[in-house]
Amino acid sequence: MTTTQPSSAAADPAAGAAVKATDRAHVFHSWSAQGLIDPLPIAGAEGAYFWDYDGNRYLDFSSQLVNTNIGHQHPKVVAAIQEQAAKLCTIAPGFAVDVRSEAARMVAERTPGDLDKIFFTNGGAEAVENAVRMARLHTGRAKVLSTYRSYHGATAAAINLTGDPRRWPSDTASAGVVHFWGPFLYRSAFHAENEQQECERALAHLEQTIAFEGPQSIAAIILETVPGTAGIMVPPAGYLAGVREICDRHGIVFILDEVMAGFGRTGKWFAAEHFGVTPDLLTFAKGVNSGYVPLGGVAISAEIAATFDQRPYPGGLTYSGHPLACASAVATMNAMTEERIVENAAEIGEKVIGPALHELAGRHPSVGEVRGMGVFWALDLVKNKETREPLVPYNASGAANAPMAEFAAACKRGGLWPFVNMNRTHVVPACTITEAEAKEGLAALDEALTAADAHTV
Amino acid sequence: MTTTQPSSAAADPAAGAAVKATDRAHVFHSWSAQGLIDPLPIAGAEGAYFWDYDGNRYLDFSSQLVNTNIGHQHPKVVAAIQEQAAKLCTIAPGFAVDVRSEAARMVAERTPGDLDKIFFTNGGAEAVENAVRMARLHTGRAKVLSTYRSYHGATAAAINLTGDPRRWPSDTASAGVVHFWGPFLYRSAFHAENEQQECERALAHLEQTIAFEGPQSIAAIILETVPGTAGIMVPPAGYLAGVREICDRHGIVFILDEVMAGFGRTGKWFAAEHFGVTPDLLTFAKGVNSGYVPLGGVAISAEIAATFDQRPYPGGLTYSGHPLACASAVATMNAMTEERIVENAAEIGEKVIGPALHELAGRHPSVGEVRGMGVFWALDLVKNKETREPLVPYNASGAANAPMAEFAAACKRGGLWPFVNMNRTHVVPACTITEAEAKEGLAALDEALTAADAHTV
Repeated sequence: MTTTQPSSAAADPAAGAAVKATDRAHVFHSWSAQGLIDPLPIAGAEGAYFWDYDGNRYLDFSSQLVNTNIGHQHPKVVAAIQEQAAKLCTIAPGFAVDVRSEAARMVAERTPGDLDKIFFTNGGAEAVENAVRMARLHTGRAKVLSTYRSYHGATAAAINLTGDPRRWPSDTASAGVVHFWGPFLYRSAFHAENEQQECERALAHLEQTIAFEGPQSIAAIILETVPGTAGIMVPPAGYLAGVREICDRHGIVFILDEVMAGFGRTGKWFAAEHFGVTPDLLTFAKGVNSGYVPLGGVAISAEIAATFDQRPYPGGLTYSGHPLACASAVATMNAMTEERIVENAAEIGEKVIGPALHELAGRHPSVGEVRGMGVFWALDLVKNKETREPLVPYNASGAANAPMAEFAAACKRGGLWPFVNMNRTHVVPACTITEAEAKEGLAALDEALTAADAHTV
Repeated sequence: MTTTQPSSAAADPAAGAAVKATDRAHVFHSWSAQGLIDPLPIAGAEGAYFWDYDGNRYLDFSSQLVNTNIGHQHPKVVAAIQEQAAKLCTIAPGFAVDVRSEAARMVAERTPGDLDKIFFTNGGAEAVENAVRMARLHTGRAKVLSTYRSYHGATAAAINLTGDPRRWPSDTASAGVVHFWGPFLYRSAFHAENEQQECERALAHLEQTIAFEGPQSIAAIILETVPGTAGIMVPPAGYLAGVREICDRHGIVFILDEVMAGFGRTGKWFAAEHFGVTPDLLTFAKGVNSGYVPLGGVAISAEIAATFDQRPYPGGLTYSGHPLACASAVATMNAMTEERIVENAAEIGEKVIGPALHELAGRHPSVGEVRGMGVFWALDLVKNKETREPLVPYNASGAANAPMAEFAAACKRGGLWPFVNMNRTHVVPACTITEAEAKEGLAALDEALTAADAHTV
């Protein structure tokens, strides 16, 4: 059921072939074996869809790496970029600028608690880099704790904090990072039988890890509020509050990474709101302006900001608080507020996507678990629901990954662009998605899951 | 001689005060003690000028951290951003996109030698991070050598490579970085008496450092082709060719960092052209699109690209090859070519700025040395021309830095926005600067230097 593209854009396979030929000659792609990739040339995008040069339109259930929370080409954000471009594209970070001030004020207004000072970066990795630097200098301690099931970015400090296998080639044993296990009942590291037990045991494990690492040596604990690429594991009630209490007791800075979970993804402005927890530092990017212009940042507590009141903060970048990026963030936050986009994400998740995914899980032997909230859902695909053996091994590639590759291909044939990671597919459409669009995508997903079912035993 | 702003923008001090008040409430600034700064609110910019809300217009001799090579608000680049915003703001890095392909092709066309594959990042720090990762994985070695007089960015690997004092608070002794001394005759680390001797001794020093560090343990040497913020020390003839030969002999990857020196700044597309040297990796940012949209990248040799042909490159970012950024880079490179902007930088440097600065040095006792090329010049300010004692001590702040603060204030009173670092002022206007504008700025500089002269002994 590959759908056709909007009539406004005629198919032009020759143009697509030219784009791809130049790409293969000159573009070096992220996370890829350059000789083994076949990048699809994209001709355009709008709202929940994008399309190629061959007349194929795809419903975007990936939001471009969980980025375009407001959908593609939102007219108010496009207009704001055009207006700011005409006025002032860039200015150095040392100056004050209307849109930089306003973007900071609006982010601070939406972050929980006293996270009222905003340090802007170009993206999530740099936000994490700076949060870690702030925590280390604030505490005078070196170590940072993060979970194995996590992704925090690809610059040196961020990739060392990352738990997933993308860390391995860049790992530095001496980076001062300690990995521990977070709560995840479906694949419990603690042999727990229910959420409450998982929570208690995960907190005890963290306490014990801190005791053996030495509380006085630990600058920060960084967690994705709801871990994203690692599997969308919504933390059990009490876990984040428990981590907050542990941090307070030991003078450890608590960093919540909301690069993926923030700005509406979970049906709140920030996922921390679901759990009533305020971190000391909160990192963001992606949804702050749906990546229309690269932008990220750190929201900073009053106490940590005060550390750098008389003492220079030793970090920065040419593009910090970039006017074009900030203007697009202001327009994005305004549009999300005016059009109730965060509320839409919550409602569509609770009333449409969540129930539909649970219904699919009941019918498809390959769907081991459904997890999520808002427009942030994971299907954990398994060979067997009893054993919970993943449909493909951890970090599989090539032939070992064939079941997931077949599933992804089936989605695309059905006009759905999926987000796939290891043995999971994530349902992460724009926060703006309508009920009709969600149902269209869920129907395509239903059909594609039969390809996964064929690999169950 | 503070000049008035263009009549198109009326002064509005109240609006400026509001912008600053919100800034002070919510914006956390780069490299600053947050309680000690007083950021100037900027109302607009055009070409070689920007202006505040109080009716003051400044000739920009800083190019906003040596960034806006094409000047402020170039109409062709603004139009390209507006057009691309209407078409496609963002798409994930895994796809092929017309402007991403074209930007990569055009950068590859301009870089020397076989640096024909382009990995796009958000800025210079991430470019350096990825270049270092590529070098380490290509060689299987860990150490990277860089110079003390250098700046390479503020993420973890980049700040450890940086030589200047901004490294200290983030320094990790275990980061695998070794700092050595580059050539700099005016403040020679080698007690040399002429450029040829400085070159020979600097190369011998590097050879000896490599011998004692162990050639087989060294992945890369990274140099700014012409070091920027550290002082614009144009390397002596033969130095970079000598480093190239040393790298080849030991299987060490040679990285040239052209984040500041590239895209016209020195009067060539890349500074490497002046020296007839092709590195294995070349990092860029800033001038590629004058920072109108955050963009950086690494140009990769065929040999290193081949390392990641069948083996995945383990690095990436959500915004790699960002369409809006790439569209602005294409427009920037086209405008620079059509309008002979690189040639203008070379000519204005050779015929106007260089001679005028040497003339100033003859008249002002505070000007110890003039160094540079194109629109990339440094005045090394001294207490005494004989002793060459810097006008302020290395890394001075507060009262110890008063002479430089007075000089900077005098520039601003004269309608000139200077670039100041330690005991130096850099003359780094846009590559588009006209002879009349350059002369206006040089006259203001002449006047301001009397403030520095007052501190000579």
